[in-house]
Amino acid sequence: MDSYILDWIKFATMKNILHGLSLILITMAATLFSIEQAGAQQDHRMIRIAKIQVDPAQLDNYNAALKEQMAMAIRVEPGVLTYYAVADKVNPSHITILEIYADTAAYQSHIQTVHFKKYKATVQNMVKSLELEDVNLIDMAKKPGM
Amino acid sequence: MDSYILDWIKFATMKNILHGLSLILITMAATLFSIEQAGAQQDHRMIRIAKIQVDPAQLDNYNAALKEQMAMAIRVEPGVLTYYAVADKVNPSHITILEIYADTAAYQSHIQTVHFKKYKATVQNMVKSLELEDVNLIDMAKKPGM
Repeated sequence: MDSYILDWIKFATMKNILHGLSLILITMAATLFSIEQAGAQQDHRMIRIAKIQVDPAQLDNYNAALKEQMAMAIRVEPGVLTYYAVADKVNPSHITILEIYADTAAYQSHIQTVHFKKYKATVQNMVKSLELEDVNLIDMAKKPGM
Repeated sequence: MDSYILDWIKFATMKNILHGLSLILITMAATLFSIEQAGAQQDHRMIRIAKIQVDPAQLDNYNAALKEQMAMAIRVEPGVLTYYAVADKVNPSHITILEIYADTAAYQSHIQTVHFKKYKATVQNMVKSLELEDVNLIDMAKKPGM
């Protein structure tokens, strides 16, 4: 009889573990879904389009500095959320960057960072013109994981 | 002795289930990571920036039609990957849309769909100007889940 009780306890424990794992999976799924949804609301987000014309002779160096800045900011700054940097197919030195920050405070903090200041110093003689357009989100729609 | 064997079999089965669940979790994590990474490569992707000026008097109707088109295309077309639609803060009728398709074939298929044709018909008298800029990705960087 003791063995049956032990059996039952072990089973009950395993069932609890499985139940716990199921909850973890459900929570993960719900979190992913809520993150996707959050993208469509984001009342406090600051979204900006930067339009940059770069000296064509220095384009490779500019792009390298830009990529380094983007990767670093996303990695270390909690309030830097999204960068898409694209280049015109016909004039690759005409660059557009879509930037999303958690809020304006996150942006103000961003431009004080060492990596952003390094980027600005590196590219100051590469950039021929810079236009910044502050925008509001109308909507975003993406495949999951994009 | 039978009871011990039964005990062991049940345990072994539970261990296999737990092992399987662990593998599922690891696979999910790896998939999410690879999707994020894929964003930085996407050799065949077609990326476009649409710059649209809308009749201010019809802006709400335009935005509604745009949102409907975006949501439908993302939901039903495998090759429509990402839309960000934003409006200039100063001139909300100046709209920019970042569009990402799996490839040019996906785009060609997209513009033949019923929902896209409905959108075009709905907005044809709302749109004052439309500029399409084909671009190449320099890089993208995003927080996980963004």
